[in-house]
Amino acid sequence: MNTPHTLRFTSTTTVDGVVQREFTVGELTGALWSAADAAGPAPLVLLGHGGGNHRTAPAMVGRARRLVVDGGLVAASLDAPGHGGRPRTDHDEREIDAMQRAMETGEPVGPIVVRYNGHLAEQAVPEWRAVLDELLRLPDVGGPVGYYGINMGTAIGVPLLAVEPRIRAAVLGQFWPETLVPLARRITVPIEFDLQWDDEHIDRAAGLELFDAFASTEKTLHANAGRHKQLPRFEADSAVRFFVRHLRPAA
Amino acid sequence: MNTPHTLRFTSTTTVDGVVQREFTVGELTGALWSAADAAGPAPLVLLGHGGGNHRTAPAMVGRARRLVVDGGLVAASLDAPGHGGRPRTDHDEREIDAMQRAMETGEPVGPIVVRYNGHLAEQAVPEWRAVLDELLRLPDVGGPVGYYGINMGTAIGVPLLAVEPRIRAAVLGQFWPETLVPLARRITVPIEFDLQWDDEHIDRAAGLELFDAFASTEKTLHANAGRHKQLPRFEADSAVRFFVRHLRPAA
Repeated sequence: MNTPHTLRFTSTTTVDGVVQREFTVGELTGALWSAADAAGPAPLVLLGHGGGNHRTAPAMVGRARRLVVDGGLVAASLDAPGHGGRPRTDHDEREIDAMQRAMETGEPVGPIVVRYNGHLAEQAVPEWRAVLDELLRLPDVGGPVGYYGINMGTAIGVPLLAVEPRIRAAVLGQFWPETLVPLARRITVPIEFDLQWDDEHIDRAAGLELFDAFASTEKTLHANAGRHKQLPRFEADSAVRFFVRHLRPAA
Repeated sequence: MNTPHTLRFTSTTTVDGVVQREFTVGELTGALWSAADAAGPAPLVLLGHGGGNHRTAPAMVGRARRLVVDGGLVAASLDAPGHGGRPRTDHDEREIDAMQRAMETGEPVGPIVVRYNGHLAEQAVPEWRAVLDELLRLPDVGGPVGYYGINMGTAIGVPLLAVEPRIRAAVLGQFWPETLVPLARRITVPIEFDLQWDDEHIDRAAGLELFDAFASTEKTLHANAGRHKQLPRFEADSAVRFFVRHLRPAA
């Protein structure tokens, strides 16, 4: 992303009142969701997807629909490096192999995920910032910006929030603290943080340590009984209300 | 409460579509809130007030209004022993003096509150059960029952839930674990649990220990940045959605 690129829409699909437009910014690939009957611009929530996932994965489409329909907001997602429509490097392949081996042998996957996602974040943070420049030029988008990303979405979101003053509220969660704690200490915007109480990958104390590190005066931990992949659906509804409270306070 | 008593309404006030009826059951004093335009019976949420407070304290009225207006539910509160319209015993006076002295001298208030509230709960649990018998006979009330009480409302609510199978979901929080953990281990209904991350009275690990003890497969911890008395208002809205999800699943 050394040269600026214009955002170009490549496809438009309308489902039940929500318009999904896929876009490119240079080599980057993303998606934008807005209300088919939008009367004017709305605040934007950036959606960071999980590891091995992509810009229009079911979780992204589901969260985007809720943000648009229930929240009156606009949502945008972006493929992380090596994800979705983007090519994998040899380094990506090696790290993915290492994660799969750890899963198969029952070794802790955390150290590999922390290292690999940290590497991806170095690239993804400037990409998100460049795409945000473009998104804020669209007539659909106006007002403050939020960020919503769990797992790898948090590994990228925390370093993004630490340097991006345009993001004013974030829903994060489910990541290891080692590399993110020093960055979280610099973040002061309101945070809603999801954690699984019985996470088999992320130690409970480690999850709490990352929540504790945010310097935000308004921060809420939502810890649910259940394993890593059992984050309840109602947390997506809670996230919508969180963003409405902070991005559309008059609503 | 050795002899059964009938519920008698003593006053009726209607404010903005919500009817507040004060009632007695024998020597007990409570309040019931329902929609002025209710078309039929609705599930009931029992409201347990905090220490030094009473059945129509602002927090009770505020929570009741939200439950009725936003949730389509009915709500009822009850004065705890020695609270509200009920006489204080010499034992009450001594314990309240001890709490106030501890507050003034900066000594930990926890051990006194745990001891005193445990004493009150022994009396309050059978009182709530007798009042619930009466409330369930009212034409306004139908369907499953919830319980909502923080602080002393949890000191009474946990032992109540441990013995009362008619209560199917509860919002609790902000209490010490010592005496409640063995009871919480017997509770399996869905729980939403509020905790203040920077509570100056209840140690963080102690608060988490009580949440951890519930045997419920669905339980959610809401931990907010802030001191003991700074529980955010939006947690009352979250509680309403929790009760709607569990008591009116079709809504």
